[in-house]
Amino acid sequence: MSRPLAVTMGDPHGIGPEITVRAVHAWADPSRPAAASAPVLVVGDPGALARACRTTGTGLRVRTVDTPAGAGRTPGVLDVLPAGPALPAELALGTVAAAAGAASYAYVRKGVELALAGHVRALVTAPVNKEALRLAGVPHPGHTEILAELTGTERYAMMMANDELRVVLVTVHQSLRTALDALTVERELDTIRLTHETLGGAGGVRGGSTGPRIAVAGLNPHAGENGLFGREDLDVIAPAVRAARAEGIDASGPWPADTVFMRARAGEFDAVVAQYHDQGLIPVKYLGLEHGVNITLGLPFVRTSVDHGTAFDLAGTGTADPTSLLTALRHAAQLTPQDL
Amino acid sequence: MSRPLAVTMGDPHGIGPEITVRAVHAWADPSRPAAASAPVLVVGDPGALARACRTTGTGLRVRTVDTPAGAGRTPGVLDVLPAGPALPAELALGTVAAAAGAASYAYVRKGVELALAGHVRALVTAPVNKEALRLAGVPHPGHTEILAELTGTERYAMMMANDELRVVLVTVHQSLRTALDALTVERELDTIRLTHETLGGAGGVRGGSTGPRIAVAGLNPHAGENGLFGREDLDVIAPAVRAARAEGIDASGPWPADTVFMRARAGEFDAVVAQYHDQGLIPVKYLGLEHGVNITLGLPFVRTSVDHGTAFDLAGTGTADPTSLLTALRHAAQLTPQDL
Repeated sequence: MSRPLAVTMGDPHGIGPEITVRAVHAWADPSRPAAASAPVLVVGDPGALARACRTTGTGLRVRTVDTPAGAGRTPGVLDVLPAGPALPAELALGTVAAAAGAASYAYVRKGVELALAGHVRALVTAPVNKEALRLAGVPHPGHTEILAELTGTERYAMMMANDELRVVLVTVHQSLRTALDALTVERELDTIRLTHETLGGAGGVRGGSTGPRIAVAGLNPHAGENGLFGREDLDVIAPAVRAARAEGIDASGPWPADTVFMRARAGEFDAVVAQYHDQGLIPVKYLGLEHGVNITLGLPFVRTSVDHGTAFDLAGTGTADPTSLLTALRHAAQLTPQDL
Repeated sequence: MSRPLAVTMGDPHGIGPEITVRAVHAWADPSRPAAASAPVLVVGDPGALARACRTTGTGLRVRTVDTPAGAGRTPGVLDVLPAGPALPAELALGTVAAAAGAASYAYVRKGVELALAGHVRALVTAPVNKEALRLAGVPHPGHTEILAELTGTERYAMMMANDELRVVLVTVHQSLRTALDALTVERELDTIRLTHETLGGAGGVRGGSTGPRIAVAGLNPHAGENGLFGREDLDVIAPAVRAARAEGIDASGPWPADTVFMRARAGEFDAVVAQYHDQGLIPVKYLGLEHGVNITLGLPFVRTSVDHGTAFDLAGTGTADPTSLLTALRHAAQLTPQDL
């Protein structure tokens, strides 16, 4: 029997519980082909989810379970595995709070435990709040760092994807100036390898004997124009691409960044390795945030996430858009086809 | 009587003559509303254009004129004002050549002369070849630098636009590392002012009492996240935005770059000032090159251009796409409504 995808409901004061409920409801729609073979288990607070069911008017009933086995298979029922201390009946929706941060951290811990034990097929995360985590004493700014520590992962990378584009970042949350200094042949090669491993495995993009086609974006205008506009493309990126190819990876580049994303969108590449935060995220977000999903490469399990925050201003209104979470569910299912 | 738009036909060995002929033919289509009030004069070589008429099968007849007055008003006729030495009957299409570079330079000189004298309404340029210009002894890598010198312009900037987005670059063709050092409050402010002057004049975007809404993109991830990811957004960009606002310009930012282009596309801003080449060109090109146009800000006249090169591999086939040149014609007409 197919194991469920685990969804952590995120910060209880944000839109996490509501988008979780709406996404589970939409995911279970019989017309959605992937749903039947990918049941969903929610990790979170049963009370908060029950309220979110009422707020969103989905008509789902919340049921508390104590094991992932068999969860997510009853029509009209949202199965939740509780974690962390029970929350009060009245939540201060829309506010940053230590208790909410601690709860969101507890859901992720439980999700990681289930995924490492192989009890769930993949981990899908609703948004946490950086400030609430800090108030709760969690020494990490976000999911990716938490997941790396909880799993003892040292080599990891962030992929942002939507229906048209997959982008993996070599550097992420640092100034552009320090990002330039952080680019090394080793780091480029690691990122290319992680991309290849994730897309080239069971969830491979092209399948068959050839692996995913990975384009590496250049750093400088026109990928440096043969050294005229900077040396990094020649001295750092090109050697990493050559080394990756020597390992049998279908990597190419450095390509001029102003057209490589357009080419990937048109189908020429399966993923683009981008050198810094905005280079990769500008094209991913250009057509609208609601379609984005965040995937962590290098973990011992598949993990996808929404690409937006807790949106405290919308919490409790029942109007938050679950599209990104649905996309995260879909990518998690696509990347773990062994459960089909 | 309305003055014509002048189109320079570009390098005779590239696709310039063919896309010029195809664009003039399409522009004259009576169903195109702007065409009637914006006749077109071509500056180039009559023989090369006559051959391009045959190659493309447009059925246009080439007529040589010696003045812009009244040009471009006869159906089925392409009016050309010759410049430079006459070219041989047989051209080595698809090759880099000094004679072709010198000819393309002569067309631009003539076009500038006509525009400075007020005999044409705006200048629209088909592509030149950097290497051919160099062989011809022209000490500039492209149109923008040539135009700046011929007009004695010191403050200028490059805008890239398509139907959804207008982007102005603070830095252009230099390494990302040197671009970081080139960003100063003065340079930011100059770029914002040039954007305001171009869009806020007779060709203003919103018209009325308020000027164009100019968003300034941040440099670092999340626009620096209050100094956590670099100081440039706080120390360089923000003061320039404040100074621009003090002058009555509707500027805002620095905005996180990963979402500002999406917001501009959705209609929130009329233009985005981008800090470096790829930041601005990735979103402009993401949806496909053929819709792009290049506009030089700060010249004493309006100048627009295709955003592609000479495409020597397509020269002579009659298949090169004139869409970018048509878009350049349309933007030139939009930015000079005083001739309506």
